[in-house]
Amino acid sequence: MARSIQSLERAAAVLRLLAGGERRLGLSDIASALGLAKGTAHGLLRTLQQEGFVEQDEISGRYQLGAELLRLGNSYLDVHELRARALVWSDDLARASGEAVYIGVLHQQGVLVVHHVFRPDDSRQVLEIGAMQPLHSTAMGKVLAAWDPVAHSELLEAPREAFTTRTATEPPELEAGLELTRERGWACDVEESWEGVASVAAPIFDRRRMPVGAVGIAGAVERLCDAGEIRPALVASVRDCARSVSRDLGARRF
Amino acid sequence: MARSIQSLERAAAVLRLLAGGERRLGLSDIASALGLAKGTAHGLLRTLQQEGFVEQDEISGRYQLGAELLRLGNSYLDVHELRARALVWSDDLARASGEAVYIGVLHQQGVLVVHHVFRPDDSRQVLEIGAMQPLHSTAMGKVLAAWDPVAHSELLEAPREAFTTRTATEPPELEAGLELTRERGWACDVEESWEGVASVAAPIFDRRRMPVGAVGIAGAVERLCDAGEIRPALVASVRDCARSVSRDLGARRF
Repeated sequence: MARSIQSLERAAAVLRLLAGGERRLGLSDIASALGLAKGTAHGLLRTLQQEGFVEQDEISGRYQLGAELLRLGNSYLDVHELRARALVWSDDLARASGEAVYIGVLHQQGVLVVHHVFRPDDSRQVLEIGAMQPLHSTAMGKVLAAWDPVAHSELLEAPREAFTTRTATEPPELEAGLELTRERGWACDVEESWEGVASVAAPIFDRRRMPVGAVGIAGAVERLCDAGEIRPALVASVRDCARSVSRDLGARRF
Repeated sequence: MARSIQSLERAAAVLRLLAGGERRLGLSDIASALGLAKGTAHGLLRTLQQEGFVEQDEISGRYQLGAELLRLGNSYLDVHELRARALVWSDDLARASGEAVYIGVLHQQGVLVVHHVFRPDDSRQVLEIGAMQPLHSTAMGKVLAAWDPVAHSELLEAPREAFTTRTATEPPELEAGLELTRERGWACDVEESWEGVASVAAPIFDRRRMPVGAVGIAGAVERLCDAGEIRPALVASVRDCARSVSRDLGARRF
């Protein structure tokens, strides 16, 4: 049993390696990055390739992630209850706010975007479902860290990059921000993750009153803010949406 | 080495099982579906859970696919050269045709949708990136089977369901359709996959003139067809798009 588990852990490490940084790696790079013998790494890659998790470029011989991951990731979304319940409400929020809407859940040390509604204008936008956002600087991340104890520990353990001069990275300042978030019932990010971009988010609770995710909007600071503060009408729309999704998940009001 | 490979193959089988049919399964269901001892299945599930590939519902104890698959699936898309090259051209095709646009590649016994542009009206639409389409009845599937010998073998080996009374399922009829597809340079599906829906697709070639994918549009048969035939202007738009993407991938005209 122990040996099976080790090969699985190593296979997962190969996939994580291919998902970050270079993304197209040769056998030697993979073996040395993971501290494996070349033969061991080759055995893992051959099986991962056979199962569709990894693809090998015919010309360069380099490995990259495979199509089966996309198919399985889509199946994960299909069965995601929070996402299913949030679909209609997040469309409404995009219309009400005129901004892009995101639904996020805690995953590893960040926020995994499980749903994204484009800003309802005709501009070209990049779909961000499956992308990760940091816990310490985004509105969705702060919401999760404020209400979910696991997210809170991850926030303190994760590396915290100062993306802009406004990013809070030290625990005392972060804790003060989370305290404010819990008091107000929502979180914001005014140019703390990306210059020129603001976001606001609120928590989604399930029938056990557990925080299961966050819903938020993000967009140009000029549209979302007035004198450096998120416009109250946008905060209200985001919180309305979070309450509607929570009710749909069975959370009671009293 | 052999043992490592077996545990990986079994882990992949667990994920495939959770991606189809029921999607939320208990330990006993998983063990018996895969012919594994309960202890073996439990060891696999525990490791898969620890790596984020599987999640366990706290109340029911049932297993489902995990968030790490979505994150890895998104990384797969990020590195997908065909998709990256096709983004702008597929937006143009959606605008020109007024219909939803799909980019598909061969995966296992079907077409994996790697890009989807919504029909440019304000209707509610479901994102289909990561979804699979059948080879025998859709325009993209026929395109792949007509030009890619591997897709052709998969088509003949795959189960072929008669989705409507117009679906061709027998080899002679399918081969005649592929012959016509190669002659014309494009394929269509007029209510062969879904009552009321038509699609038209063309092949994308890379710098080695290998068929690497298909691009197509799909929509209401009333809009796409005239007297049972795909409107020539739509065929032209789809083929224009396929040629542009192919040129971007380095395919030469002569």
